[in-house]
Amino acid sequence: MVRAAGFEAAVDESLRAGARAIVAITSGLGEKDPDGLKRQRVAADRVRAAGAVLVGPNCLGIADTGTELNLTWDRFRPGPVGLISQSGNLGLELAQRGHDAGLGFSRFISVGNQADVDAAECLRALIGHEPTRAVAIYVEDFGDGRAFASIAESAAAAGKPVVLLTIGATPASVRVAHSHTGALVSDSTAVDAACRASGMYRVETPQQMMDLLQVLLAPHQPAGRRVGIAGDGGGHVALAADRMIARGLLVERFSEGLAASLAATLPPTATTGNPVDIAGGGEEDIFNFERVVRLMAQSGEADAIVLTGYFGGYSEQSEDYRRLELEVAASMARSAHDAGRVLTVHTMYPTSPTSRQLRRDGVPVYADIDAAAFALGRRAERNAGPSLGVPQLPPQAGATMPVATDYFGTRQLLAAAGVPFGEARPVASAESAIAAAATIGYPVVLKALAATHKSDAGGVRLAIAGEAQLEDAFREMQGRLHPRLFSVEKEAPLAHGLELLIGVKRDRRFGPVALVGLGGIYAELFQHLAVALAPVSVEQGVALIRSLRGGQMLLGHRGGRQLDIEAAAAALSALSQLAATRPEIGEIEVNPLLVLARGVLGLDARLVRQSTDP
Amino acid sequence: MVRAAGFEAAVDESLRAGARAIVAITSGLGEKDPDGLKRQRVAADRVRAAGAVLVGPNCLGIADTGTELNLTWDRFRPGPVGLISQSGNLGLELAQRGHDAGLGFSRFISVGNQADVDAAECLRALIGHEPTRAVAIYVEDFGDGRAFASIAESAAAAGKPVVLLTIGATPASVRVAHSHTGALVSDSTAVDAACRASGMYRVETPQQMMDLLQVLLAPHQPAGRRVGIAGDGGGHVALAADRMIARGLLVERFSEGLAASLAATLPPTATTGNPVDIAGGGEEDIFNFERVVRLMAQSGEADAIVLTGYFGGYSEQSEDYRRLELEVAASMARSAHDAGRVLTVHTMYPTSPTSRQLRRDGVPVYADIDAAAFALGRRAERNAGPSLGVPQLPPQAGATMPVATDYFGTRQLLAAAGVPFGEARPVASAESAIAAAATIGYPVVLKALAATHKSDAGGVRLAIAGEAQLEDAFREMQGRLHPRLFSVEKEAPLAHGLELLIGVKRDRRFGPVALVGLGGIYAELFQHLAVALAPVSVEQGVALIRSLRGGQMLLGHRGGRQLDIEAAAAALSALSQLAATRPEIGEIEVNPLLVLARGVLGLDARLVRQSTDP
Repeated sequence: MVRAAGFEAAVDESLRAGARAIVAITSGLGEKDPDGLKRQRVAADRVRAAGAVLVGPNCLGIADTGTELNLTWDRFRPGPVGLISQSGNLGLELAQRGHDAGLGFSRFISVGNQADVDAAECLRALIGHEPTRAVAIYVEDFGDGRAFASIAESAAAAGKPVVLLTIGATPASVRVAHSHTGALVSDSTAVDAACRASGMYRVETPQQMMDLLQVLLAPHQPAGRRVGIAGDGGGHVALAADRMIARGLLVERFSEGLAASLAATLPPTATTGNPVDIAGGGEEDIFNFERVVRLMAQSGEADAIVLTGYFGGYSEQSEDYRRLELEVAASMARSAHDAGRVLTVHTMYPTSPTSRQLRRDGVPVYADIDAAAFALGRRAERNAGPSLGVPQLPPQAGATMPVATDYFGTRQLLAAAGVPFGEARPVASAESAIAAAATIGYPVVLKALAATHKSDAGGVRLAIAGEAQLEDAFREMQGRLHPRLFSVEKEAPLAHGLELLIGVKRDRRFGPVALVGLGGIYAELFQHLAVALAPVSVEQGVALIRSLRGGQMLLGHRGGRQLDIEAAAAALSALSQLAATRPEIGEIEVNPLLVLARGVLGLDARLVRQSTDP
Repeated sequence: MVRAAGFEAAVDESLRAGARAIVAITSGLGEKDPDGLKRQRVAADRVRAAGAVLVGPNCLGIADTGTELNLTWDRFRPGPVGLISQSGNLGLELAQRGHDAGLGFSRFISVGNQADVDAAECLRALIGHEPTRAVAIYVEDFGDGRAFASIAESAAAAGKPVVLLTIGATPASVRVAHSHTGALVSDSTAVDAACRASGMYRVETPQQMMDLLQVLLAPHQPAGRRVGIAGDGGGHVALAADRMIARGLLVERFSEGLAASLAATLPPTATTGNPVDIAGGGEEDIFNFERVVRLMAQSGEADAIVLTGYFGGYSEQSEDYRRLELEVAASMARSAHDAGRVLTVHTMYPTSPTSRQLRRDGVPVYADIDAAAFALGRRAERNAGPSLGVPQLPPQAGATMPVATDYFGTRQLLAAAGVPFGEARPVASAESAIAAAATIGYPVVLKALAATHKSDAGGVRLAIAGEAQLEDAFREMQGRLHPRLFSVEKEAPLAHGLELLIGVKRDRRFGPVALVGLGGIYAELFQHLAVALAPVSVEQGVALIRSLRGGQMLLGHRGGRQLDIEAAAAALSALSQLAATRPEIGEIEVNPLLVLARGVLGLDARLVRQSTDP
């Protein structure tokens, strides 16, 4: 805990004194200026050379509740969550919200600028750390993103779910994060791709993180989306039903048999078809709560059980009620557990003795019904299928043979990789345009290729039917745009297909990320890209395309014909292989890729070389 | 507080004893069986006849913190929120969450089954109730929905915002609510229409209600969407920026002047372009928090200021820090107030002395950054324009002249009201079909009209080019579908327009609700309807259409031509007028309504008579 000016001296003294591990709280190094960045790197090298390790600088310390090591400013209640945070204060907020949710922590590591030890290493260490049963990570800079994702995948495989909070969804957060820890923030799509690959759960706030962890740490997980809801009050159970369904869960009517069993134990005012409104039955006999939970859990008609409303609050009314409610709570937790179901409780009294006991018994307890719905919904989504896996990058082609970035060069590169394109010829004069069109056959399209090869406004003329029209178009575009080169192309059957865009964008941390979305006007309307770490297989490509918002349009809604999703996926796979092999490709895109009833046609192509900025 | 069996006797005794107001906690009347419903109605009539009023039955009582009247089971902290709840327990949860947010209550009314006094009357009473500055309502059955909406509109006009929580978004919640209080639950679209008309804020959870009320009760409201963010830590401010932008707010870069002023007061590690990362500057000098807030508030560059992260927690560290932080907090609240800006604080320590003081000083304080973003975002949305107003229903045509529900009758009714349709002729034989087509001119469309007039699967044949094709189509459809009648219609220029659906659906409580959405495949893709209480003006129709998700397609993206939104709005307005005048229309719909570059064409019409079930 020294100022930046004394950093190196403190490190050296520590090493001399035989320190094997150094925790550097010191800020003001490497966050903003290259000079500080260099200083922290040099120091880290000295630490490693001495066989020691360094956490930080610019961190808030570390804690291990199992060994009672606490080199932080805060206290951590022992528990199953391993917490890694690149931001000190956010780490403390996560701990705070975790404690509020009854969660405790096995270890806390504030990694700061990650000059030596980074978040990925910490995550790897937690996989083998027995007391850690789930990992909560806040990170801004993923370092070697592929390695990070692979470690997260291993954690998931070891039964330790990883919940990730990060920033960088907006330019405003990117600009501040860079100043904060010198972080190279990843594009939000790259992070999504990494989550889809590794099975990490991505959340948006500290609160969501702890809400979700409560469910992930419960002794049983929902095997499906069916939720059984009960509460003592129609308002609460109705609201719960609306929220559960809004979060993607199902609230299906119970069988008549189950409804009748429930009715038999409850007062006549009760509703028992799901949601179950005990309707004063809890006031009459508090054991009704336990009976209802038990019947629902044993029925097999619900994958998760939600108790909502007042229950949890009796223990705050009187000593007698406390004794009774604790007994009921213990017995309902046992019923759910014995039946292998997850029970979650939303209560108006989330800090009551009963709520605390429920949490100790592995029952997630929420103050907000939507938090319960969020957590169950996010967990239940996973039942749809396994994560994609973190793909190996293929052997990298040397950068000695730089890729062409002009239009025809890019087309050639893609065509050679297996992305089909329509016929096109480069022309520089009206005469050669007419000759080209004669070979290709009318109607044709004329494109003026700008220096960047990307067609300028008004640089594409469609549906040219004959020579005269072609010559007119050529002269007009030449006079207006002065392009170096034109392309004459076979007109594609636009009306018989749908436009997609496929591409790969290289993220500094996660490498090439494949993306696919609807093209043309739909790109703007749906604003949705499906993403995956490149390369992707044809099968994965099909899954990505099917997951697109608006992707139903490929299934034959339009004009009745189903379009060739397989061919589109094959083009995406080929493009992703190409980009994954050639590190000098920064961005590559085919937009539009026209998907037809049979096959696909690339109609435009664009390549941007990887920037060589540090 | 008597059982249902003793209800009438208790009411009668009370009246005999001179009671002018009765609060009936009693449940088991009117929620489920018609008999109980009748009993509570009879009792309510006797109460009114005696010049008294009755709240309930099936309620949890009433409270008035100003007069210290408390006929409930709970305690209410005094404050500015009038709370009306149809569910007793949900009312208590709202109070609980309100207390957690530092909010107090002027009055609490649990209206239960609303046999006599209903939520609308309570809302009206709160408009004139001086201590009440905002109203929180949970209601399942809106009674006379138009009257309810009008009263809510008056409340908003009186400067008392109304925040509404309701249920009924899903069949699961509808079925339980009906059992719960015998409620006739409104369609969620009708509730949205009422909110759009009256300016009520609709929320989805008790937590959201209190989060929003904190901002609505702040002394200054944001005039725009620009947010200035500051905090001591890059993670917190970056996360705040992402959440604010996700909730529709703007985090724009500050001017160089402002950034420089901020930099001048902060340590060199700070980032000052917005978000502002004080970067340890708060640790160095806690008054930096106040300086930053003051500079942002005075700059005019932010409509709202968000302080996020650790601040609020110093007061829990030591007595010295407490004194300092309280001073800083008071002074930043004053700065924001003097500059007429809303300051909100997200803190890891939402129950600290500083947090409590901030709330008392009119500064909303949140434990969750997304809650702050939600509240500011919802409030800022309102700056886009005033609410639509609750329209008067036009004089009702008598039900003596029942509307036709067949296809041609519906078309006629709509055409007479001013909705344009293409040419169509009813035919019963192939010969008359051919004769009709000869008059209309090919290509034509042939529709088989089912008994319900709604075309069955395969009951429409498009693009019939000549006699032979028409005869074939006729025979084939006749053999397969056996329709009573066919319609021969002029083929519409589908490729030159876009399909909308326009309609009106009558809600039991809110009356006719106008709706418009994209038609055809886009209906399914966007799943978005814009809704308003009927009748709507042409102007309002234009606004509704422009607000549609995917509505940009009408603005000339497709094929470059702007489509005739005005004509579509005129058709919607005409249809809504018609439905608002004729109470026997339960549902009426033109789907598709083809919107062309000039004008619109109704291509199908459907009418369902209002059900006469009670």
